[in-house]
Amino acid sequence: MEHLKEKTLHSEKLFTGKVIDLYLEDVELPNGKTSKREIIKHPGAVAVIAITPEGKILMVEQYRKALEKAIVEIPAGKLEKGEDPEYTAKRELEEETGYTTSSLQHLISFYTSPGFADELVHLYLAEKIEKLEVKAELDEDEFVELLEVSLDEAQQLLKDQRIFDAKTAYALQYLELQQALQK
Amino acid sequence: MEHLKEKTLHSEKLFTGKVIDLYLEDVELPNGKTSKREIIKHPGAVAVIAITPEGKILMVEQYRKALEKAIVEIPAGKLEKGEDPEYTAKRELEEETGYTTSSLQHLISFYTSPGFADELVHLYLAEKIEKLEVKAELDEDEFVELLEVSLDEAQQLLKDQRIFDAKTAYALQYLELQQALQK
Repeated sequence: MEHLKEKTLHSEKLFTGKVIDLYLEDVELPNGKTSKREIIKHPGAVAVIAITPEGKILMVEQYRKALEKAIVEIPAGKLEKGEDPEYTAKRELEEETGYTTSSLQHLISFYTSPGFADELVHLYLAEKIEKLEVKAELDEDEFVELLEVSLDEAQQLLKDQRIFDAKTAYALQYLELQQALQK
Repeated sequence: MEHLKEKTLHSEKLFTGKVIDLYLEDVELPNGKTSKREIIKHPGAVAVIAITPEGKILMVEQYRKALEKAIVEIPAGKLEKGEDPEYTAKRELEEETGYTTSSLQHLISFYTSPGFADELVHLYLAEKIEKLEVKAELDEDEFVELLEVSLDEAQQLLKDQRIFDAKTAYALQYLELQQALQK
């Protein structure tokens, strides 16, 4: 809505990182007053709900430095510049789990932290996956552990706060909803 | 899991903001090699699924400078230092919508962007709300517009990408799941 718009008066890039960039902006508010906005630019990411032939959900456990703990998440990864999200989703699935798929269905895309960041996550469903004969290589600074869990087991991990992030919580609720709708 | 842990070798604070702080850390990876991590520290936030006596969902439209557009979200806001999330949830509901509640139910807490940020969102359900006689004041740099929508209308806003963020997508799926489970 145009009358809510905040006009940029000045934008300064304070940090250029491997993953994120930081901007500090002076904005004009709808009432004509000014304020500052701290903004993180992020390339965007993908995540995949991948179901094995045995009906298990693929999960990866990895250390998240920002949280200073390891958590369990659905396979996910950052977009490379100019990359098609569907391509990234297949690559990340292969690298993190050793499974591949030719049937990715886009479920939803959402901003994770609209208050300060432009990170957009594209969520896919892969109901038909198969094991790669040769496992793809992870990025050299990436260490993950693969888990294959039932929906009940995943719900328990969520209760125990070992699953603890928005995209994975959304994914589990998605599967619970599909189950409820089928009844 | 201890064997996935990344040890901090050096941590430097590069930016101290009103909302976020930025750290650059040198870490030792599980294989002994080193890497850098870019980390955003955030005070955490709350969000509220609030249902009017007429069965409508309260939503607020606001401009998000990081996205350079206005989006429609459930009422939400940042934690002040040391604040109890339930207190914040009630305050933000009052400030952003003019409704109050004495029945907040905690549904879930999740990290929004564990790859680079420690922002934790606490999501509450308020099924009994009532209009304040005198509307609470918004922060001076906050401009929001209140919407009261049915679940069907909200689903349409989601399809149209006017609802576009993780917590609100999760909230709508939560309500859809409750509806499906009641059938």
